[in-house]
Amino acid sequence: MRQQERQGPGDTPPEELDRLIGAGAEAARVLVGSRPADRAGWLEHLAARLDAAAEQLVPIAARETHLGVDRLQGELKRTTFQLGLFAEILRDGSFLQATIDHADPAWPMGPRPDLRRMLRPLGPVAVYAASNFPFAFSVAGGDTASALAAGCPVLLKANPSHPELSAATGAKVSDALAEAGAPEGIFAAVMGFETGIALVKDPRIRAASFTGSLRGGRALFDLAVSRPEPIPFYGELGSVNPAFVTPDACAQRADDVAAGFVGSMSLGNGQFCTKPGLLFVPAGSGLEDRVAALAGARPAAPMLSEHIRSGYSEALAQLAERPGVRVIAGKARPEGDPAPTVLATTVSDLLADSEAMTQECFGPAALVVSYGSEAELLTAARVLDGQLTATIHSSGPEPVTSALLEVLTERGGRVVWNGWPTGVSVTYAQHHGGPYPATTSVQTTSVGTAAIDRFLRPVTYQDAPDDVLPPPLKEDNPWHLPRRVDGMLQPV
Amino acid sequence: MRQQERQGPGDTPPEELDRLIGAGAEAARVLVGSRPADRAGWLEHLAARLDAAAEQLVPIAARETHLGVDRLQGELKRTTFQLGLFAEILRDGSFLQATIDHADPAWPMGPRPDLRRMLRPLGPVAVYAASNFPFAFSVAGGDTASALAAGCPVLLKANPSHPELSAATGAKVSDALAEAGAPEGIFAAVMGFETGIALVKDPRIRAASFTGSLRGGRALFDLAVSRPEPIPFYGELGSVNPAFVTPDACAQRADDVAAGFVGSMSLGNGQFCTKPGLLFVPAGSGLEDRVAALAGARPAAPMLSEHIRSGYSEALAQLAERPGVRVIAGKARPEGDPAPTVLATTVSDLLADSEAMTQECFGPAALVVSYGSEAELLTAARVLDGQLTATIHSSGPEPVTSALLEVLTERGGRVVWNGWPTGVSVTYAQHHGGPYPATTSVQTTSVGTAAIDRFLRPVTYQDAPDDVLPPPLKEDNPWHLPRRVDGMLQPV
Repeated sequence: MRQQERQGPGDTPPEELDRLIGAGAEAARVLVGSRPADRAGWLEHLAARLDAAAEQLVPIAARETHLGVDRLQGELKRTTFQLGLFAEILRDGSFLQATIDHADPAWPMGPRPDLRRMLRPLGPVAVYAASNFPFAFSVAGGDTASALAAGCPVLLKANPSHPELSAATGAKVSDALAEAGAPEGIFAAVMGFETGIALVKDPRIRAASFTGSLRGGRALFDLAVSRPEPIPFYGELGSVNPAFVTPDACAQRADDVAAGFVGSMSLGNGQFCTKPGLLFVPAGSGLEDRVAALAGARPAAPMLSEHIRSGYSEALAQLAERPGVRVIAGKARPEGDPAPTVLATTVSDLLADSEAMTQECFGPAALVVSYGSEAELLTAARVLDGQLTATIHSSGPEPVTSALLEVLTERGGRVVWNGWPTGVSVTYAQHHGGPYPATTSVQTTSVGTAAIDRFLRPVTYQDAPDDVLPPPLKEDNPWHLPRRVDGMLQPV
Repeated sequence: MRQQERQGPGDTPPEELDRLIGAGAEAARVLVGSRPADRAGWLEHLAARLDAAAEQLVPIAARETHLGVDRLQGELKRTTFQLGLFAEILRDGSFLQATIDHADPAWPMGPRPDLRRMLRPLGPVAVYAASNFPFAFSVAGGDTASALAAGCPVLLKANPSHPELSAATGAKVSDALAEAGAPEGIFAAVMGFETGIALVKDPRIRAASFTGSLRGGRALFDLAVSRPEPIPFYGELGSVNPAFVTPDACAQRADDVAAGFVGSMSLGNGQFCTKPGLLFVPAGSGLEDRVAALAGARPAAPMLSEHIRSGYSEALAQLAERPGVRVIAGKARPEGDPAPTVLATTVSDLLADSEAMTQECFGPAALVVSYGSEAELLTAARVLDGQLTATIHSSGPEPVTSALLEVLTERGGRVVWNGWPTGVSVTYAQHHGGPYPATTSVQTTSVGTAAIDRFLRPVTYQDAPDDVLPPPLKEDNPWHLPRRVDGMLQPV
């Protein structure tokens, strides 16, 4: 997001925002005592309501985002599946990390008291919705799902690129949560650029999550950490998602690699944070030409918004003007809707201008970089910033592979092998995060079940009598949770 | 730390710091592939070497810190026990959070690839040693132990209040790690105020931890988060550690409560971050007089340094001058070494001036606050900032207890029942952290085995062949780790 309207007619008035945050703070006091299994039921009810509303919501989404109906239906399914997966996590209970150390007079450093730790919700959180996934990273998306699962009320800052969908989805979320018995104030969708700033600065807000641009995300991060009481800020900002094709892989599967790459970089019209924006190919392999041919045959398509289209055009034109960069498919200065556009350069030109050439260009463009040797490939990999993903195409044991893997795991959050980074599955082992600027918080994920950790913090009770302990820490384990007791994991 | 010498003769020269950080970055590349069980061996060897050096180190510590030999011997034991406990955690392997999702074509949101996640070390980290625990929170203390356990090289910024001990301990650490086979560059102790600033700003440093004053910690936090690439900063800054005595507890155990409180607030001459600095007592209960009598009978004792003594004197004098505050034991303006000093006020006076009266006063002083009703007690609890600890003395089911517990778990990291917050045991369930300003990172602990989490981050491998996966993620589980596989916890 570059320039947003700073104030608009649909913006949430400051006094209304204040009331909603106050209601969130009230709800937080109820939620901290809520049973995870009850929250699971709320999320499942919400998922069912959203599934049932597909015929209402998908057409609004299609109109506002220009994404296809099939894609949007799939995305809604992903969204409701995600709510259900968090419900499962809540019923499992491991997420609470309940840990019990009984008093031990013989503890080697000196007698220890009875200590019992569990995680508890942080309190009301601000969630900044993304433009590019109007369901899965928006009003009822992964951040909302994981925060509600954790027991945190959500103040949802709607993305201005799909306001009608945000309002309609927000109403569904509020209604479904109320129907399911969740406390009043647990969720509210708010609008407006200034609203978003006021939200992250409000002392009642205890954490924030964001998916969007480097510039917008860093500005909010800076506000979050410069508060009198700094708060955790989980920003997913940008990534160029480099992919590396080894000589053997190119020799054996050039057509597959070219087709896979073009499919991935043009998926959703290139408007994915995991779009592979850099492809390293062996010089003289002909892979560049195959990519150009496939990409050049793809049609133009509308982008999410005029704002994003103009930002893309500007970034693309700047990239195309760098010394040593050639346009091999599409146009450097598209008029109207853009078609997939491929630029080409060499490692030596890239190294001479690496900061400009390795920036994310949000849209259907990618840069193919020819390397002359494995040493050149590794040198190029080492100049990259932090990444959400990095991809290796290799066909068996090649000497370069292990060295490349080492460099990429240092720089990336997810390393993809002989595949493509788009299509981020929601699972237990998924990780969607990476060193800055991929994310502002290198230790957390915004996709997958581990995303709940962002909205929890520990508390330890020392020598507390059983009747005042919360159920997860009571001696007889009434909720049948997996716990670590005196250092040993005790699954149920 | 208020005013430090900005440069001194023992400071690490900038070029030497640069070389040491470079060596740390080299070591990080080796460490990321090191086996946790090998790191366990290094820590155990280091513990043995430190234990064997007690007769050398304890006298230096006693001379530089004025803490007693018995206390220092106990603290060294705590320090080496802690190293051993992290060794145990490394052998257990749960800390890696290895998670495997096999490819599943029937995954409800769409076919999922094979995804495998584990935690890996962040890279070189800066550790800022504390003044008040010259062993346990200093050169070979908890932060160093947990960072080394995680596989992160440590650049240790020595505390200027015990330079000779820091140098001697640093040499032991370096020698022991080298003897045990750890890579060169894994540890270095550095000195100087400007050195500490350069360290947190260096792009090769990937995280920092700190124990010390609100002012110093916030300044370093601000540097860490305003870097081009922000890094996690784990600062433990300050806490007044309120303790609340209910009417029933006072009626039944007034002598015990008074003795326990005075013992805890004067332990280590009040120079503990968990010192109870506020004691809420029922008005007219006489508890205030008992506390004053016991505290007034205690001798004066030297403080850690002249710098800390003068800071204490200033803070104490300011507190004693607040309207409604009386000195009931000790002196508001001690000359030379201070003796335990107790001030008294009422909840209504405290509420009129709560910001000034609820600040940490680092040294042997505490404020006893009389409350007239349970409502007053709860109102006072609600104005408190974030705390490392909060203590309740209660004698069974009293109506106020559950409401108070709710307020205190919202504000504190550890809630102590019928005990005292000093003497922080090192265990699995321990939590030493809390809402700001207790710590800058509300979600982490600097004591206990969970402290290792601060220095790790996830990486996920997608569809990677078994031969390139790190051992914790290989299909046949060669290290016999507990793992979560397809959503189910599989202990070994």
